[in-house]
Amino acid sequence: MSTQTTDLRIGMVGYAFMGAAHSQAWRTVNRVFDLPLRARMTAVAGRDPGKVAAAAAQLGWQEHTTDWRSLIARDDIDLIDVCTPGDSHAEIAIAALAAGKHVLCEKPLANTIDEARAMATAAVRAEAGGVRSMCGFNYRRVPAVALMRQLIADGRVGEIRHVRAVYLQDWITDPQFPLVWRLQKDKAGSGALGDIGAHIIDLTQYVTGQRIAGVSALTETFVKQRPLTAGGSGDVTVDDAALFVARLDGGAVATYEATRFATGRKNGLRVEINGSLGSVVFDFERMNELEFYDAALPSDEQGFSRILVTEPDHPYIAAWWPPGHLIGYEHSFTHQARDLLEAIGTGVSPTPSFTDALQVQLVLDAVERSAALGSWAEVEPALTEVAA
Amino acid sequence: MSTQTTDLRIGMVGYAFMGAAHSQAWRTVNRVFDLPLRARMTAVAGRDPGKVAAAAAQLGWQEHTTDWRSLIARDDIDLIDVCTPGDSHAEIAIAALAAGKHVLCEKPLANTIDEARAMATAAVRAEAGGVRSMCGFNYRRVPAVALMRQLIADGRVGEIRHVRAVYLQDWITDPQFPLVWRLQKDKAGSGALGDIGAHIIDLTQYVTGQRIAGVSALTETFVKQRPLTAGGSGDVTVDDAALFVARLDGGAVATYEATRFATGRKNGLRVEINGSLGSVVFDFERMNELEFYDAALPSDEQGFSRILVTEPDHPYIAAWWPPGHLIGYEHSFTHQARDLLEAIGTGVSPTPSFTDALQVQLVLDAVERSAALGSWAEVEPALTEVAA
Amino acid sequence: MSTQTTDLRIGMVGYAFMGAAHSQAWRTVNRVFDLPLRARMTAVAGRDPGKVAAAAAQLGWQEHTTDWRSLIARDDIDLIDVCTPGDSHAEIAIAALAAGKHVLCEKPLANTIDEARAMATAAVRAEAGGVRSMCGFNYRRVPAVALMRQLIADGRVGEIRHVRAVYLQDWITDPQFPLVWRLQKDKAGSGALGDIGAHIIDLTQYVTGQRIAGVSALTETFVKQRPLTAGGSGDVTVDDAALFVARLDGGAVATYEATRFATGRKNGLRVEINGSLGSVVFDFERMNELEFYDAALPSDEQGFSRILVTEPDHPYIAAWWPPGHLIGYEHSFTHQARDLLEAIGTGVSPTPSFTDALQVQLVLDAVERSAALGSWAEVEPALTEVAA
Amino acid sequence: MSTQTTDLRIGMVGYAFMGAAHSQAWRTVNRVFDLPLRARMTAVAGRDPGKVAAAAAQLGWQEHTTDWRSLIARDDIDLIDVCTPGDSHAEIAIAALAAGKHVLCEKPLANTIDEARAMATAAVRAEAGGVRSMCGFNYRRVPAVALMRQLIADGRVGEIRHVRAVYLQDWITDPQFPLVWRLQKDKAGSGALGDIGAHIIDLTQYVTGQRIAGVSALTETFVKQRPLTAGGSGDVTVDDAALFVARLDGGAVATYEATRFATGRKNGLRVEINGSLGSVVFDFERMNELEFYDAALPSDEQGFSRILVTEPDHPYIAAWWPPGHLIGYEHSFTHQARDLLEAIGTGVSPTPSFTDALQVQLVLDAVERSAALGSWAEVEPALTEVAA
Repeated sequence: MSTQTTDLRIGMVGYAFMGAAHSQAWRTVNRVFDLPLRARMTAVAGRDPGKVAAAAAQLGWQEHTTDWRSLIARDDIDLIDVCTPGDSHAEIAIAALAAGKHVLCEKPLANTIDEARAMATAAVRAEAGGVRSMCGFNYRRVPAVALMRQLIADGRVGEIRHVRAVYLQDWITDPQFPLVWRLQKDKAGSGALGDIGAHIIDLTQYVTGQRIAGVSALTETFVKQRPLTAGGSGDVTVDDAALFVARLDGGAVATYEATRFATGRKNGLRVEINGSLGSVVFDFERMNELEFYDAALPSDEQGFSRILVTEPDHPYIAAWWPPGHLIGYEHSFTHQARDLLEAIGTGVSPTPSFTDALQVQLVLDAVERSAALGSWAEVEPALTEVAA
Repeated sequence: MSTQTTDLRIGMVGYAFMGAAHSQAWRTVNRVFDLPLRARMTAVAGRDPGKVAAAAAQLGWQEHTTDWRSLIARDDIDLIDVCTPGDSHAEIAIAALAAGKHVLCEKPLANTIDEARAMATAAVRAEAGGVRSMCGFNYRRVPAVALMRQLIADGRVGEIRHVRAVYLQDWITDPQFPLVWRLQKDKAGSGALGDIGAHIIDLTQYVTGQRIAGVSALTETFVKQRPLTAGGSGDVTVDDAALFVARLDGGAVATYEATRFATGRKNGLRVEINGSLGSVVFDFERMNELEFYDAALPSDEQGFSRILVTEPDHPYIAAWWPPGHLIGYEHSFTHQARDLLEAIGTGVSPTPSFTDALQVQLVLDAVERSAALGSWAEVEPALTEVAA
Repeated sequence: MSTQTTDLRIGMVGYAFMGAAHSQAWRTVNRVFDLPLRARMTAVAGRDPGKVAAAAAQLGWQEHTTDWRSLIARDDIDLIDVCTPGDSHAEIAIAALAAGKHVLCEKPLANTIDEARAMATAAVRAEAGGVRSMCGFNYRRVPAVALMRQLIADGRVGEIRHVRAVYLQDWITDPQFPLVWRLQKDKAGSGALGDIGAHIIDLTQYVTGQRIAGVSALTETFVKQRPLTAGGSGDVTVDDAALFVARLDGGAVATYEATRFATGRKNGLRVEINGSLGSVVFDFERMNELEFYDAALPSDEQGFSRILVTEPDHPYIAAWWPPGHLIGYEHSFTHQARDLLEAIGTGVSPTPSFTDALQVQLVLDAVERSAALGSWAEVEPALTEVAA
Repeated sequence: MSTQTTDLRIGMVGYAFMGAAHSQAWRTVNRVFDLPLRARMTAVAGRDPGKVAAAAAQLGWQEHTTDWRSLIARDDIDLIDVCTPGDSHAEIAIAALAAGKHVLCEKPLANTIDEARAMATAAVRAEAGGVRSMCGFNYRRVPAVALMRQLIADGRVGEIRHVRAVYLQDWITDPQFPLVWRLQKDKAGSGALGDIGAHIIDLTQYVTGQRIAGVSALTETFVKQRPLTAGGSGDVTVDDAALFVARLDGGAVATYEATRFATGRKNGLRVEINGSLGSVVFDFERMNELEFYDAALPSDEQGFSRILVTEPDHPYIAAWWPPGHLIGYEHSFTHQARDLLEAIGTGVSPTPSFTDALQVQLVLDAVERSAALGSWAEVEPALTEVAA
């Protein structure tokens, strides 16, 4: 850390689940990685004065405010970290970019295509002035996922034939679970689809290098009314589950499923990819492992190999512990912070860009259209055009 | 065996993979189970005189013939076991039933809906005269699958929300693999869809007690031409992979996938079912195990339990070995033979009936229609009406 | 089978668990494998006239007798298959060899070292006259175990450092389980040690090619009295569990454990071997799988690979089903029958020989001595000297 | 954190692997847990002036020094955290206790029994004055291990019959790996035995509540000479592997193995415990999981259940992430810091005490004696007597 002479001063908006995870990352990243920039936890913004003060103390932010706009107005803040629900992403991110602040925005990028497109356009414009933006698809930063991508990129899996992706949770199987914001369309945009489906869409597009070109989908809301915390009950206005088959633009076919009703699956993000030369399998509930089937080995020695992705030559690992000493969920955020500080510090564009995230939104949109119409829906490419 | 006074004399048509498996079952079933009927391997029929003679000697059939009709004409044969490719099922089975022979017919029941419907009608008519028929969905007879059904029937999984079924193989990933009959539509009816997709359709309908009501599908043929064994090459006229999302008539939503291009998956029939009270998971590559998640246990003790389905109180097992001593693939056929002998001997209708198998064909048909049209396809119920 | 012109006529003594397993093997072996000899199930002997008659009918033996000596006296019997408890092995096997009958004898070879040594001597003498003998360590014939041996023999594991072997069962954890013959020293010789410990001793010596040279052991009998089926209770005179550390003569160090009190482990024979270049792991509860860690692979791709040992180029498998279609416990006996028929038919000595089995007995003896004395015990090599 | 009014000011000695892990814990613990004391990272001591300065900057310590005694002399330090190799533990810890500082000392407690006994005596004396001490067996703080202990304490496993514990690593299988301090007896005390064997000794005694009463052991050094980093080579003076069978004072029998030559096992701490009512299994390479076999369930539903120990009602978890979001190795240190701050803050004695750690040393000593003599060695209880 002795060589780090430049601070990156951060203002975070939101301090709930994602805010806690991001804070842990900002506190840790420079303790573990050698980076050109040093993260400074300058201020956090939230709506409730008491809660935001407590969160600042608990999470380690130097200052706090109830006005996120004040963070953007400050000269001593370099990056806005957007950890709010999806309905406020566009407004905050676009304002921050306009003010010349770098932006890290949680996924899904926005609740509507229009908002997402506006954000992508703003990001491309800002990029021209050296202002960076990134969407927080943190699972890309799990070492086993990075290794998966690398094996595919190196041709070890060959031509990709099949993608099989599920993201299974079970936290709302109880019909008495209340109607939280994640179950309301105006706050969350969609249900399992945007919350966790977005992760497997991004992850599979990322590791395969292929774009989802079309889908045929169904969605379901199993529990249509739920208790309100204030008493009474209200309508669930998002999907409980979204399932679709898809074609990728490189020729693979795929199944996707996102649900919050898979009893016993707590955070079951699982992806299997079969190619002409091999297969790879990832399961987030065993996030330190990657399974790899190498069809180039002698036929009587082939098998799914459980690679413990904790070796020094695995992505991100050299900075951590010896082999076999696992890392956890929060490390994906620390790695995300690492990659972002590295990109900003060295002047390159971080990924996934807002345009990459718009692409995910376009898939979500196609899924909803297909489910509504009962027919195949094409996904348009996310081209971001900016007038000269 | 001393109490068995009645023989059931069998004529088998076909002696390849399925013929060998059925023969192993007929040879073994009365050695292991106490049954009201004793299987006699009377004669086997096949087209090639030399090969059918060799097969009879190898597999243990007393006689052999090149004329399957002669088996049906004989008075000393009670049951016709149809192990030929799907294009001849209807002709053989209908003739046998007409002659008053019980029929065991391999799956898929037929290559077309019309044939399957004719077979189901013939079976219902024959049933009135005490002539029994059964379709060979042998995976129903795996003890772990039977246990899965029992747990669901006992309400241990609760209201079923999700079915997740794949049948993954990889034996034709090599483009130089030849154009065998299973890759020709006129012989096989369809590709992965009918060969292995039919198994997961039947199995999930069987264990859930729900019918697939509608599907949205895609199919793909990755390798469109293959070498002929006689030289040159020919067109692959069936699907290499079939994927679909579905709704079951009891309210569950589902994904299905059948493929022969899942590198590393040899016989990967995997089914997961999530309900409001628990989940069950089966993987044929570990066919002696069933995973069960019981959400009624204390919350800090819940987990997917690996039940080794080899206890004396598990289905079929008391006749075999002590706990922990595994059984194999062929045992599913021995159990099928057991259930059929038991049903015929005690005068009850065996299952799955030809009507049950017709129901599977109707799903296959809907999958093909949906894939062709790019839209949702309803599955009609398999109602078998027989004129008085 | 058409080319098999010579019968091998078998007389089996004993018809309980092992008798049933051997019978299934004799019935099946020529249906599946092409062999120079054809097994004939000529006669079975047992003490109870009614039970042996029923067993003959159930298991498929042409004749039955209550006098095992009559089997040995017959000219039309070529091989005696000894499936009785260990206390009668020596008398039957030695008499059979003296009469010029080939002998297959279940493990453990005998209840005492003296008996085992006499049997080994008799076998060496008989061998000179072309009379063959083999001890039934059937787990050598599991394809995954045969593959394990082959990988080690091919140098893929390198210099062996560690052997880690357990055989865990739980069938007598209930103190009310009765005092069966396996819990009586005069019948069974020892408890878990000889019954299941013998298997892991033989298996590890077989796959490593190393001999156990010395041991330090403890044994325990947790439940010291048990109910008699006739009423009252009696003393358990064998070990419930035997644990030891060992040195192998090739330089490896090892741990061994055999117990019938490992709650939840039904037939948990697990062996792990670590060498300078790799490791192999086998678990009988997943007997169709072998795990292999190849340290010669690139460091970021190393992992324990789950080889599904069901490919045509795996040992024994070509005769069975397609890849991914599992085999079971009984197949190990069919493979044992195959190897024995092949050896006798082609005039070579089958393995494991009685001298190999004596070696296992010498280890069992050292374990008991070490446990009694609380000190290290050397294992003498099993040298069988026969006076000219 | 707003309620924390009291700081606990820490001086850490040593800053290598353990120092980094402890630092991460001190930085994080108050951000995640509500505690009566707030950890302050006051100063770190190390021998090399440049390196200790860099470490302080990297790890977040306010000051640094090359004189550990100066930390003890300071009034503004409340706790000494000993992260040095074992040969200096006694001197530092005893001096700190004498000065009235609380002490956290890494394991193994000391390199000799005499030192360990002196430390335990010093700790008991200090305790009378409210000065606390704890030995750093961090694996006790893995949530799955804490759950394992709780299940056993609640009687869910019944009377314990078997303990099966291994700690397998492979980082020195290469004979060219250099002669680091951990391979030198004067620095490290012993090899695999004290480094990792100590962990499984402590862990199994902790979760069972039983003490190892006697052992029969062997140790081995596979590679007897290794390169020195300064050139040339030197003798390896510690064990590469230590294996032993044992009896626990509650009646269980056990096997233990610690090795650095288990190719492919990176941090394979695995413990299985079988009792009369159930079994539990833990594998550190899957540290977020606990397997539990409950023999009280209906017999056809029993199986090893994979409990994902990430629920809010699991030990330590409520402070972290939602279910299914894993934690890693470093969290065991954060939990250790939490428990220590809680104990000091509320005025109770933390565990494991130095006397508990002395007990582990006495087992290590018995293992070495048994291996040297080739005979059973009793383990004396760790009674700490302090003269009035």
